[in-house]
Amino acid sequence: MEYQKIDLSLNGPFVIQSLLDFIASQIKSAGFSKAVLGLSGGIDSTLVAYLTAKAIGHDNLLGIRMPYRTSSPESMYHAQIIGEKLGIQTKTMPITEMADALINIQPEMSPVRKGNIMARCRMITLFDQSAEWGGLVVGTGNKTEALLGYTTLFGDSACAFNPVGDLYKTQVRQLSRELGVPEEIINKPPSADLWNGQTDEGELGFSFDDIDQLLYHIVNLGESFDEVVSAGFDPDFVASAARRIRNNHFKRVPAPIAFLSPDAAIKDLAELKDWGI
Amino acid sequence: MEYQKIDLSLNGPFVIQSLLDFIASQIKSAGFSKAVLGLSGGIDSTLVAYLTAKAIGHDNLLGIRMPYRTSSPESMYHAQIIGEKLGIQTKTMPITEMADALINIQPEMSPVRKGNIMARCRMITLFDQSAEWGGLVVGTGNKTEALLGYTTLFGDSACAFNPVGDLYKTQVRQLSRELGVPEEIINKPPSADLWNGQTDEGELGFSFDDIDQLLYHIVNLGESFDEVVSAGFDPDFVASAARRIRNNHFKRVPAPIAFLSPDAAIKDLAELKDWGI
Repeated sequence: MEYQKIDLSLNGPFVIQSLLDFIASQIKSAGFSKAVLGLSGGIDSTLVAYLTAKAIGHDNLLGIRMPYRTSSPESMYHAQIIGEKLGIQTKTMPITEMADALINIQPEMSPVRKGNIMARCRMITLFDQSAEWGGLVVGTGNKTEALLGYTTLFGDSACAFNPVGDLYKTQVRQLSRELGVPEEIINKPPSADLWNGQTDEGELGFSFDDIDQLLYHIVNLGESFDEVVSAGFDPDFVASAARRIRNNHFKRVPAPIAFLSPDAAIKDLAELKDWGI
Repeated sequence: MEYQKIDLSLNGPFVIQSLLDFIASQIKSAGFSKAVLGLSGGIDSTLVAYLTAKAIGHDNLLGIRMPYRTSSPESMYHAQIIGEKLGIQTKTMPITEMADALINIQPEMSPVRKGNIMARCRMITLFDQSAEWGGLVVGTGNKTEALLGYTTLFGDSACAFNPVGDLYKTQVRQLSRELGVPEEIINKPPSADLWNGQTDEGELGFSFDDIDQLLYHIVNLGESFDEVVSAGFDPDFVASAARRIRNNHFKRVPAPIAFLSPDAAIKDLAELKDWGI
């Protein structure tokens, strides 16, 4: 695949500062001072941990490690390193028993179903710890994942707010480097860690470098199929990405409600009127 | 409390037909022909079961009963009656083991935390059964609950689409009556069924008749605090409802993302472009 590479790198200091402001203001405006997040040992949650600790102070952040029995010890080790480096409180709450209560009813279910159950058990644990710790759940899903639908609805995508949801994976790497995240975390192959040897790029069938470039053409530049192919991208690659974007659209928007009046969606539910109370 | 009662009743046949069309088109446009829903034995899920069975045919609907160990046998019995009346397939999948895997770590946690864990375990079960059965998860949350935030985010409010989300509780009762739902289900006190003797109205501190009237004034008529009080509603009641609406607003809108460009929320994530693929 021969295409002209676009520079996706951001103005690091400026973007980092605006993300810190976003985190601080989200937590404050909700009436909180603390936050909680799942520490997987991967780069996304590590970047969010760095940002959040910086935005609200390391004492106010709780990092939860939530291994399943097949989770790699290396991920656990990296999560621990990050917790110690940032000086935040950490807690380890395995999800094995909770997830297996359902998985064991049908142990031959597909790996995708198992992965969704695990991601949702982590959501339950995290939101319950949010109540216990009195802090908001910070999201860690990036834009590449959201567009490809490489995420579990009501699972890893569930959060109170998300500081990295508009960053492509390659931009997550860039900001992580600028914030001093250990190179071994930045450079290891991203993985959902559902089984031994799983990598995101292996499962998706392409590299994040390539897909981020393609997504930028499709989504940010708004190019058509033909334009993207003329830019040098393989037609099959473009078609499969476009299909993923379309088929996973439902994960990026609220579930449709049968509204009785045309403006009820906004006026009744989404808008917040100020009654001065 | 002396207020002028507004008639909230709907044009039954017209609304029912539009809800049937909504259900059928949601399922079809997603490329499915089947649906799955949690049958609690309560009026909301019963109405949705009646509507969905009518919209797509009883053979295409799977009803799941998901009791926790403290769930009332009466609820289970009502859920079974509905399943049999509609001739749909039903399945019973207790959530006790899954929920207790987390609850037992801290058994003294508040009833609210326990209730949230249960609601989310039901969500996991339902979405996993959605994959197994090949049908969309139909939502059953009504507008009264959504406005008051009397619902668990990523729990009972999670669904693929919701046919009753713009109906007040009293309108759910009206349509249920018109569709022939058994009177014992319509007339029993609504309950989240988290502990023995719990009723929604007891926990909320007011009746659905009163709150629906008040919500209509606040939300649909857009009246101010003073206007609502002049209409005859108790000021404390109005204030507590207004506070609930405001404090639970986050449950009705997507979690905020730190967008790098002002239009990314719509243009990049929510909009679906047609690439003709």
